[in-house]
Amino acid sequence: RIDGDRLWDSLMEMAKIGPGVAGGNNRQTLTDADAEGRALFQSWCEAAGCTMGVDKLGTMFATRPGTEDLPAVYVGSHLDTQPTGGKYDGVLGVLGGLELVRTLNDLNIKTKHPIVVTNWTNEEGTRFAPAMLASGVFAGMHDQDWAEDKTDAEGKRFGDELDRIGWRGEEEVGARRDDIRAFFELHIEQGPILEAEEKQIGVVTHGQGLWWLEVTLTGKDAHTGSTPMHMRVNAGLGMARITELAHQIAMDHQPNAVGAVGQANVYPNSRNVIPGKAVFTIDFRSPDQGKLDAMKARLEAEAPKIAADLGLGIEIESAGHFDPVTFDADCVAAVRDAAERLGYSHMDIVSGAGHDACWINRIAPTAMIMCPCVDGLSHNEAEEITKDWARAATDVLLHAVVETAEV
Amino acid sequence: RIDGDRLWDSLMEMAKIGPGVAGGNNRQTLTDADAEGRALFQSWCEAAGCTMGVDKLGTMFATRPGTEDLPAVYVGSHLDTQPTGGKYDGVLGVLGGLELVRTLNDLNIKTKHPIVVTNWTNEEGTRFAPAMLASGVFAGMHDQDWAEDKTDAEGKRFGDELDRIGWRGEEEVGARRDDIRAFFELHIEQGPILEAEEKQIGVVTHGQGLWWLEVTLTGKDAHTGSTPMHMRVNAGLGMARITELAHQIAMDHQPNAVGAVGQANVYPNSRNVIPGKAVFTIDFRSPDQGKLDAMKARLEAEAPKIAADLGLGIEIESAGHFDPVTFDADCVAAVRDAAERLGYSHMDIVSGAGHDACWINRIAPTAMIMCPCVDGLSHNEAEEITKDWARAATDVLLHAVVETAEV
Ligand SMILES: NC(=O)NCCC(=O)O
Ligand SMILES: NC(=O)NCCC(=O)O
Repeated sequence: RIDGDRLWDSLMEMAKIGPGVAGGNNRQTLTDADAEGRALFQSWCEAAGCTMGVDKLGTMFATRPGTEDLPAVYVGSHLDTQPTGGKYDGVLGVLGGLELVRTLNDLNIKTKHPIVVTNWTNEEGTRFAPAMLASGVFAGMHDQDWAEDKTDAEGKRFGDELDRIGWRGEEEVGARRDDIRAFFELHIEQGPILEAEEKQIGVVTHGQGLWWLEVTLTGKDAHTGSTPMHMRVNAGLGMARITELAHQIAMDHQPNAVGAVGQANVYPNSRNVIPGKAVFTIDFRSPDQGKLDAMKARLEAEAPKIAADLGLGIEIESAGHFDPVTFDADCVAAVRDAAERLGYSHMDIVSGAGHDACWINRIAPTAMIMCPCVDGLSHNEAEEITKDWARAATDVLLHAVVETAEV
Repeated sequence: RIDGDRLWDSLMEMAKIGPGVAGGNNRQTLTDADAEGRALFQSWCEAAGCTMGVDKLGTMFATRPGTEDLPAVYVGSHLDTQPTGGKYDGVLGVLGGLELVRTLNDLNIKTKHPIVVTNWTNEEGTRFAPAMLASGVFAGMHDQDWAEDKTDAEGKRFGDELDRIGWRGEEEVGARRDDIRAFFELHIEQGPILEAEEKQIGVVTHGQGLWWLEVTLTGKDAHTGSTPMHMRVNAGLGMARITELAHQIAMDHQPNAVGAVGQANVYPNSRNVIPGKAVFTIDFRSPDQGKLDAMKARLEAEAPKIAADLGLGIEIESAGHFDPVTFDADCVAAVRDAAERLGYSHMDIVSGAGHDACWINRIAPTAMIMCPCVDGLSHNEAEEITKDWARAATDVLLHAVVETAEV
């Protein structure tokens, strides 16, 4: 069993870097705070006897050697956070992996397969869309150049920001792609199901698929006072109607479908100017491929009608996509067996969020372990878990990994 | 008659200060660009033989002396612009006033009453709400301290920014309040009516009243992927519905009523976070007091229901208000007579926008002169007028003022 106190202390230590405004974290990818978090993680890994490799997109790989020349078993997640994120989203998976290594060291257990603890760059995708960017390139889903050219809201390039914080490594991205025995990602649920069902462990069998759309409406800036109603070309009103449409589409695909507008911006964003432009993002998800594609198709069919009705120009672009995921049966079984053996209550669950594991699943046997989070709250500074939940889930990670890495 | 070319050259010269991104201007109040524009105006006034007074809110008063000790006739408007504003909104009234002085100088005409050309601070109200801030304090409608405490989006105080740009004067605000013979404000229409009716001159008889509301919705930030639809408390969806409500309310009060959301912000404004907070502004206007108040009352009655339906907290604050205005009959007649005498086509019109004249009308006989603008477009960098329109309207200003200031 792992050391729950040590794990918790590390979580709290990491949370001091990039503090938020309400008890959580703002340690967005490729910021100075991200660089500081990476350095702390590296120092811990080296103290635990691991050697650190960094690839050309900044993803970190801390290797605990195996006793034989075999493909490594990977664990890990991400250290980057939302702008108003919690202390556990991603971080638990990385530091849980580190805790697993520390525990094996304490117990002097050697595994045949090496174990690698990973910190994937830019999982969140808030600053640079899409999410899971580095793992997507690693898995061969995206081009590296395409990823490096992604810009944040201020127009800063991903590649430039990576250089600026000094975390571009030497290793080619995906060089290890064909040399992975398995990948286990431990993550908080970010939803309310495990807590409601009073289960300690979520055995993740599937992941939702996702469509991220970005809509730009073009109208005409004009004076709110002296422009008669019938002469307006109001991009803000169009945004309101398409926000409602996205909501209705998700409601019409219940259950097992969600949809919302996350970013919403009008221009010039002035009290007495009818917005001449609106730019906003839609996030549709479902574990059901048919529903997922139907939601996107309906938005693409109906939003242009709303725009046309108001005289607005419209552009709809895809800003991210993945199909629903089915995790590897053997890896999932290893997680379920570990929970069973350890006597933790568990249930099969679908991941509502995207995770690096969703991409890595394409190139290597992969599974995920989830622990509950209070009120299902995540992407919120108030995100909370208990030390017991963290301990139990990391125990399961340890056992699944040790079984797969073979003693 | 005034010198249309000289007027136009001055307009173009001023437009070089605080250029926009699309041919217009971004010379928002109390910015460095505003300071530069003020300095240019002062130098022109002094070259035209005026003495400049500046009050404690930065409003500028350039006086051309009269031949007798009588209350002055005021003209002017504002030099500040929207963030994406045009070259004429406000500026025409100030530089038209200057042109009037230059013309009187050329013709060696002296008036019994002094003539004062005014540049009112912060007419636009975008950076610091409400609009017409300094003229409102001048007219005794607001407290000076209240005005100075207004903050912009970055939290900077009006009073501090005024000091920073170095344009706080010595004169008590409103010191001249009881010593005003009349105030004539020349302004572009900012609406489409004069152009559609093919009239050169709008004789402004009334101004719309206005309610500016600011709505804050409080929900719960949560993950867009893993939060089931029925567990969401989506402030962005609430904003969308209240945006539609504001539009519907205005439509239900047609004709002679308008309403729109101008500023719209969600937090944390991240693709994969259900907005936990939304802050947005509503602008309702009508020349009919009953409609104006009914629109506000309906919003205040129905928006809380929309919020409650979604589980959202709601706060609605007033961020600006004035009642519909009836301008002074004698001043209006002076404008109409001047247009008639000069042979310019004209019509009576209601001002859709708020103007400093709306406040000054409370303390002194006031009227406004409007000229058309292309497509009725204003609060837009593409705002345009013709040199002929500017010349005709400034001719009317000259004649109305000379008649009132008495030769
Ligand atoms: N786990 C997580 O929040 N990942 C970011 C991508 C997503 O929004 O699902
Ligand atoms: N004229 C003008 O745009 N004034 C600003 C106040 C308003 O929005 O009416």
